[in-house]
Amino acid sequence: MTADRNRELLAAFRGGDRRALARLLSMVANRSPDINGMLDDLFALTGEAWRVGITGPPGAGKSTLVNRLVAAYRSRELTVGVIAFDPTSPFTGGALLGDRVRMEMVSQDPAVFIRSLATRGHMGGLAVGVDESCDLMDAFGKQRVLIETVGVGQSELEIAESADTTVVVLMPQSGDAIQAMKAGLMEIADIFVLNKCDREDADRAYQELAGILSLKDPQGGWRPPIIRTIAAQGDGVDELLDAVNLHHSHLVDTGRLVERRSKRHAAKTRRLVEDDLRRRLWQAERKRESGEGLEGGQSPYELAKRLIDDFYEEIRDEEA
Amino acid sequence: MTADRNRELLAAFRGGDRRALARLLSMVANRSPDINGMLDDLFALTGEAWRVGITGPPGAGKSTLVNRLVAAYRSRELTVGVIAFDPTSPFTGGALLGDRVRMEMVSQDPAVFIRSLATRGHMGGLAVGVDESCDLMDAFGKQRVLIETVGVGQSELEIAESADTTVVVLMPQSGDAIQAMKAGLMEIADIFVLNKCDREDADRAYQELAGILSLKDPQGGWRPPIIRTIAAQGDGVDELLDAVNLHHSHLVDTGRLVERRSKRHAAKTRRLVEDDLRRRLWQAERKRESGEGLEGGQSPYELAKRLIDDFYEEIRDEEA
Repeated sequence: MTADRNRELLAAFRGGDRRALARLLSMVANRSPDINGMLDDLFALTGEAWRVGITGPPGAGKSTLVNRLVAAYRSRELTVGVIAFDPTSPFTGGALLGDRVRMEMVSQDPAVFIRSLATRGHMGGLAVGVDESCDLMDAFGKQRVLIETVGVGQSELEIAESADTTVVVLMPQSGDAIQAMKAGLMEIADIFVLNKCDREDADRAYQELAGILSLKDPQGGWRPPIIRTIAAQGDGVDELLDAVNLHHSHLVDTGRLVERRSKRHAAKTRRLVEDDLRRRLWQAERKRESGEGLEGGQSPYELAKRLIDDFYEEIRDEEA
Repeated sequence: MTADRNRELLAAFRGGDRRALARLLSMVANRSPDINGMLDDLFALTGEAWRVGITGPPGAGKSTLVNRLVAAYRSRELTVGVIAFDPTSPFTGGALLGDRVRMEMVSQDPAVFIRSLATRGHMGGLAVGVDESCDLMDAFGKQRVLIETVGVGQSELEIAESADTTVVVLMPQSGDAIQAMKAGLMEIADIFVLNKCDREDADRAYQELAGILSLKDPQGGWRPPIIRTIAAQGDGVDELLDAVNLHHSHLVDTGRLVERRSKRHAAKTRRLVEDDLRRRLWQAERKRESGEGLEGGQSPYELAKRLIDDFYEEIRDEEA
């Protein structure tokens, strides 16, 4: 019986079995039909972990920084979960996995749990189930959950909706701050990291970023600090950790944490509703029809109207 | 009467009145409730324009290239529509509009129509109504429509769903090709442009990109060429135009154009259906409830289930 197996799995999870955590994370990734009910059961165990999103443009050194952060948290005796995205591009092959492999070294530590999620096809959106994966790490008892984006695409910005603290990593490179501004990263950053600060143009880049930030009104009394790091050498990582803690305290003290988490809860609820509705809406028959508009000479506007009417009719014809 | 005004507007549009085009584009941007019916009316006029998406990382020189492409198309006596995205970040102000202003110079030409669309909030997704805006330019008689993304976020990849030919612009910069690969740009590119080829590392960058591309199987018999340009000086722009034409012929000759446009038609139909459904789903009352889960102590999984049941009940209670 699946129900029995699921109950056993939940019991093993509650008992701290890492394989049970791994199994549930896979169920999330595979969109198992049972997983939402199981997450509902575990919901009461969530809310303790601090969720730190690490984002920024490609090449800024996010993976290296995450490695260092894990080590720093461990030296403060905190347990850590890491959620990282791998591109699933069919022809990227193993070459890009170098960072991930390095990370696996850190993961020999049983207090650390690392999970790579596949991004959703070529659209670059946030991986399926990143919120749910955080919930699982949280319910499992991880005290910190780090979420690292692949660095391009929607995921860069969506991460702010899953994280308590969002860290935007930049590097000293001409126009990087301007581009980050264009990309909307300024709005989501709680903390900036200027990484690779051993480069000669680091001071200029720092001034540029500080200049742009000074134009921005602090949101809710918080002005994002800029932390200078050389992640490859571990420089500045403790300062970054302190800044995350400071941001944590700030959110708790001002009551903005409740507000932020309430928003996240609402966004997640709405996403779950829409996912469910979409599954039902795009059942085989309607999905097929939606693909035959052009050959049938129907405009998308006309066809869309017909499909909606059809959907409503189906619901009405059904017993409640 | 709104209906009368809309009819007049459509008549003016069909008569080639640029102000009518501008007005309809605004109705798209403002999600006017009347616009879908009007687009349905104009649908028969679409399908002639060739839609070229220009995307790539920030700073690669996309705006400059678009300017040059417009001029090159004009010298071949083709009419052009341009759809470009402006970041709507509340504090970016006017500083970033320099490129756009330069573009307005090109737009003195009455055969060119340029429209900037706002991107959707901080999420970086493709601007509201880019497809519909293309349809309008197309129905208005523009022979080429250029769509330029802001260069970061989802828009970079979504553009491939609106374009007939997708041009990915890179520049000679260490690791740019690798990062493009990570970001999924390799999958969507019909043509690569290596811009700023007057830089000293251009040859190395070209080899790197060519090396990566050689590992990839050509899709449907098309292997994306790499065009070297110096957009600021106009070098390579004619070659790019020729490559776009070649890609056009390829899609027509192999029948892949029908396939591609049929997919686009289907995706658009589904989006229209989902937008409509979402509007109805998230009416004030349910929207409010979805935001009260955390304080009510309900898990998002539990609350989502209740909201869906509620939505279905509402539809059942209603007369068809």
